[in-house]
Amino acid sequence: MNGRSAECDTALKTDRTTVHRHPERGDYDRAMVHRIIDEALICHLAIVDDGQPFVMPVIHTRVGDNLYFHGSRGSRLLQALAKGAPACATMTIIDGLVLARSAMHHSMNYRSVVVLGSGRPVEDEATKRLVWGALVDHVIPGRSRDCRMPNAKESAATMLIEMPIIEASAKIRTGGPKDDADDLALAHWSGVLPLSLTPGNPIRDDGGVRDLVAPNYLHAYDRARRA
Amino acid sequence: MNGRSAECDTALKTDRTTVHRHPERGDYDRAMVHRIIDEALICHLAIVDDGQPFVMPVIHTRVGDNLYFHGSRGSRLLQALAKGAPACATMTIIDGLVLARSAMHHSMNYRSVVVLGSGRPVEDEATKRLVWGALVDHVIPGRSRDCRMPNAKESAATMLIEMPIIEASAKIRTGGPKDDADDLALAHWSGVLPLSLTPGNPIRDDGGVRDLVAPNYLHAYDRARRA
Repeated sequence: MNGRSAECDTALKTDRTTVHRHPERGDYDRAMVHRIIDEALICHLAIVDDGQPFVMPVIHTRVGDNLYFHGSRGSRLLQALAKGAPACATMTIIDGLVLARSAMHHSMNYRSVVVLGSGRPVEDEATKRLVWGALVDHVIPGRSRDCRMPNAKESAATMLIEMPIIEASAKIRTGGPKDDADDLALAHWSGVLPLSLTPGNPIRDDGGVRDLVAPNYLHAYDRARRA
Repeated sequence: MNGRSAECDTALKTDRTTVHRHPERGDYDRAMVHRIIDEALICHLAIVDDGQPFVMPVIHTRVGDNLYFHGSRGSRLLQALAKGAPACATMTIIDGLVLARSAMHHSMNYRSVVVLGSGRPVEDEATKRLVWGALVDHVIPGRSRDCRMPNAKESAATMLIEMPIIEASAKIRTGGPKDDADDLALAHWSGVLPLSLTPGNPIRDDGGVRDLVAPNYLHAYDRARRA
């Protein structure tokens, strides 16, 4: 898969994934697209039903050049994906609020990725096992070695969809506000308020084995270090 | 608008917005839907173009029973919305990671809202002014009184789309993991890792008026208190 990645580095950019608003924010480098996908905790996944788009928050993971989504075999979203419905997967990381002196120039620092394409069901058990591990570790790095992984029955009951990352783009804003020259003398604080998805103290479940200490991978939880 | 809200309290639920997977997580109460919309910093907004869904992260705000989106008049997304294209606006707040003893029962605590419908352009200047203030304060409560609000030219140059909240649902998961009885004796830590979008230290912009102290509304920034 790595060979293919190198060869496809600029192929992610198509007419449909070209960033038109603020083209300077567009990025079509596969490594950057992968990094954002991996750091984003969840994905907003859309399909179309009878002309109406539906966007659902779902957990994703990436293995090589593929995105994976999972769920119940009864899920209408997954069923549509399994049939190859046109889909869009968007992942967004918010990095901060940008405060300008004028309301107009307020903005956000963010990194987002849009992947267009379609999915296909995965029934191969070896691939499914690989992805279950990747999925758990996408959400909580290290957790796949510290939980009971799915047995054959659980794996079979769970639908897995693979969506190749063929057509995609990243959009990235960084840095401070860009005020008009006339506004620079206004006495409004301007700058950036960094934001990040931050863990609180782990809350242990009652019941089960007592006195287990929260593992290090929870205290050290940091999406930015994941990528 | 409040009278209409009361009367429409259950009308948000339609066949298209009924939560089928985990129906116990569905909530169709307008006050709850509004609360989640208000706390969510951004929205994932989808339209369909030639059968292909496109999902973009955008800033939203709510005034009464309407969602508002804004942007450049050149934006293809906003142009499609202005023409009344079927749209879906999804807002998701992540509250925590749920760690079960088995991989299968890992989950997330979250609150999400899906709004289906379509938009219409707003050209009325009084409404636009009201929404510009709401928009700034949606992102940073209190900021609209501490920046230069749009002048007539800036307001006219910015497209504003109104999307009535007529058909919607919330989906909410709270609480700890729900492991199978057979797994309770496994020696894996289980519980919840709370997550929240947390501010860091404000970074002041160089240039402009010196020595301005970061305002209190930045140090006290807390999405959960907003709602």
